[in-house]
Amino acid sequence: MLEAVFDKIDQNAQLYTTWLQELCRQPSVAAQNRGMAETAALVARLLEAVGARAERVPTAGFPVVYGELQQGAPGARTLAFYNHYDVQPEDPLEAWDSPPFAAEIRGGHLYARGAADNKGNLAARLAAVHAYRQVGALPVNLKFIVEGEEEIGSPNIAAFAAAHPDKVRADGCVWEFGYKNPDGQLQVSLGVKGMCYVELRVRGANTDLHSANAAVVENPAWRLVWALATLKGTDERVLIEGFYDRVLPPSAEEVALLDEMAYNEAETLEQLGLGSFLGGRTGRDLKEALVFGPTCTICGLSAGYSGPGTKTVLPATASAKLDFRLVPDQDPHEVLAALRRHLDARGFGDIEVTPYSLEHPAKTDLGAPLIETVLAQARRVYGREATVNRLSPGTGPMYPLCQAQGVPAVSFGVGHAGSNNHAPNENIALQDFIDGIKMVAAVIHGFGAA
Amino acid sequence: MLEAVFDKIDQNAQLYTTWLQELCRQPSVAAQNRGMAETAALVARLLEAVGARAERVPTAGFPVVYGELQQGAPGARTLAFYNHYDVQPEDPLEAWDSPPFAAEIRGGHLYARGAADNKGNLAARLAAVHAYRQVGALPVNLKFIVEGEEEIGSPNIAAFAAAHPDKVRADGCVWEFGYKNPDGQLQVSLGVKGMCYVELRVRGANTDLHSANAAVVENPAWRLVWALATLKGTDERVLIEGFYDRVLPPSAEEVALLDEMAYNEAETLEQLGLGSFLGGRTGRDLKEALVFGPTCTICGLSAGYSGPGTKTVLPATASAKLDFRLVPDQDPHEVLAALRRHLDARGFGDIEVTPYSLEHPAKTDLGAPLIETVLAQARRVYGREATVNRLSPGTGPMYPLCQAQGVPAVSFGVGHAGSNNHAPNENIALQDFIDGIKMVAAVIHGFGAA
Repeated sequence: MLEAVFDKIDQNAQLYTTWLQELCRQPSVAAQNRGMAETAALVARLLEAVGARAERVPTAGFPVVYGELQQGAPGARTLAFYNHYDVQPEDPLEAWDSPPFAAEIRGGHLYARGAADNKGNLAARLAAVHAYRQVGALPVNLKFIVEGEEEIGSPNIAAFAAAHPDKVRADGCVWEFGYKNPDGQLQVSLGVKGMCYVELRVRGANTDLHSANAAVVENPAWRLVWALATLKGTDERVLIEGFYDRVLPPSAEEVALLDEMAYNEAETLEQLGLGSFLGGRTGRDLKEALVFGPTCTICGLSAGYSGPGTKTVLPATASAKLDFRLVPDQDPHEVLAALRRHLDARGFGDIEVTPYSLEHPAKTDLGAPLIETVLAQARRVYGREATVNRLSPGTGPMYPLCQAQGVPAVSFGVGHAGSNNHAPNENIALQDFIDGIKMVAAVIHGFGAA
Repeated sequence: MLEAVFDKIDQNAQLYTTWLQELCRQPSVAAQNRGMAETAALVARLLEAVGARAERVPTAGFPVVYGELQQGAPGARTLAFYNHYDVQPEDPLEAWDSPPFAAEIRGGHLYARGAADNKGNLAARLAAVHAYRQVGALPVNLKFIVEGEEEIGSPNIAAFAAAHPDKVRADGCVWEFGYKNPDGQLQVSLGVKGMCYVELRVRGANTDLHSANAAVVENPAWRLVWALATLKGTDERVLIEGFYDRVLPPSAEEVALLDEMAYNEAETLEQLGLGSFLGGRTGRDLKEALVFGPTCTICGLSAGYSGPGTKTVLPATASAKLDFRLVPDQDPHEVLAALRRHLDARGFGDIEVTPYSLEHPAKTDLGAPLIETVLAQARRVYGREATVNRLSPGTGPMYPLCQAQGVPAVSFGVGHAGSNNHAPNENIALQDFIDGIKMVAAVIHGFGAA
């Protein structure tokens, strides 16, 4: 039966590509409240097109689009899909080779903000259900949880899960993201890092001033620089007291997974135009940092004049956006509190800290049946072993939606190593999209049969 | 005779305000090459309107508008005016209460980018010559040097002075700027600080990346922060080796001037919304820092995402704009070289340093006759003593145009303590403008009579 579904997917490839383009051409920048209602409506329409009952569940922010397809035989398992319909802001616009919402196809790739993160995966999962149902009955019940605030830290998804336990209950959840590694192997992720995203703001005089005043008026940009420099040393070690206290060292089983993880260092360095990785890391050290290392990243710096040429200005204000990616069992609320104490203790009590996103890390129990299904079906669809990523360097609300509910979560998808998530020229390969649809169909099949 | 000139100025007040508005409504942002040719043409036209022979002298950048009025009696002194027709960029636009090039008059003030720096002074000087000549013959020969690149560091004015020694030769020069202090006293400046304006740029990967990569890819924003933090300590001391070596301590005569300098600390703090000055300085310490202290100022910081909300991005590049204001006898070229050595020695050899403006500090000899004339005429026009600023915290090409040519330079003008130079809502009081015209006329009169 599954071969017939695969044939159907090949026959419908043009239709599914159209769905993908339709999704990608609809801007949905949650951070800037652009196109959110339109995109939620489009997702609901596509859910209904594949036979699901769809509803938009209100939250304190953008609605969750929820879909349900209860057609499994009595006693059938329930498989949930978690995706998101929001995307990152598309700037810097000038760095894109085609407009970010044009969804242009060039050389077998589709380029768009959201192509890889996360509309390609959403479209692939919808397409798989569509094709499967054209061939026969689904062997599982399905739930779709498609939120609109993943890129702004999912501030309302925990409340959604608490308010709708019936909607998140499942025997397994296919998580939102996934990529091939540089060797072309499918990566399967069994956890996510957490996140503490904050903005630091320093205020000086109530107006920008001629920089001649710098001899006597405090410069918030200097205070920001000095404060930031206390947060992380040039050896990359975070200097906030207690930051590493809850970090769990990888278990023997996790270390074994690390050794199997493929990472093409030379190709990645060439793609990025770099001579070496951070701190000169290679091999297992490099992989361990990527998988199990918490980070503290300056995502943005802003103060005064940054246009062409010169402006001799003493800025009135300076700000930095920082993300801390956390690993089990770090707690984002604890990190936020420790950051505040750190600044206060060093004379930076005046620096405002605004939290934007506080997400727990999460790990799937290695014994979950869904893991076995996904790895077996990957072998079947791609003709080779998938690699297992114990903890994705990305983040997301896996803790409230899955771990806290006892639902095993496994993540795979249609991206590749050069998909440029969150960056200009985000893209997926159309062949990966079609293969990814087959992979979803195979997982539905396998999870229903087991 | 001078009283008749003053009467004429009062009669022509409306006309001169119109000239001022015409100048202010013409954008002339040298840093962005906006409106430069139009403004040069307007200045030439106004010079001719007051009877000067005007020409636009080409440079490697924007032309110098040069005017000459040779009508003094044989043996008469020559007085030069140095001004500039370019202005600072007007951003942040949203902080202006009226459009920056509308030259709107509200509550007796004219608001415009360039109103105080430097079009108000240029208009006042033109108006003074116009009024004087309506009453009688000028007692001095006049030269006008009106450059178009002051706000971008006067990169071509030294070459102009070298190529045209006849155009810069004079017995004294009225420099471009000037303000009342918070007590309403006219400030007369007898020197300027120098400038070394640079941009630091750090490059990482060849594209912005998802910040999940921060565990293994170097972040240029962190490197920028760490490098900047090595340049100046939290005690405000510049840590570049040799930075202070050439700083001359103030002489006894200069210290005496410092003690006479008025500075309304409480009012300035209130205007700026600050609780205290930098380092808690007050009184003479404060004035000494303002007048004789070199500075290192972050004028701009830029990296990654600085829009609303969050973007979890690892920036490809990070940059800072820095200005060093220098005091006699610091040398901007030496500071630039020392900065490069400093960065190299601390492992920041990869950081690009782009110099934008390198200007020497300059001081007028305290025995120059023009100083006596200006102070005496200020008493007459304003009815009270002017304060003397030995070294203005501002900067400009006084060294190549005056000090290196043996021409004493004295600076005074039509601004006030809240003129917001280089900042939103730049403005001058119309009464200060009219008084300033009279002051220029009085200096012409006094310098010709002496």
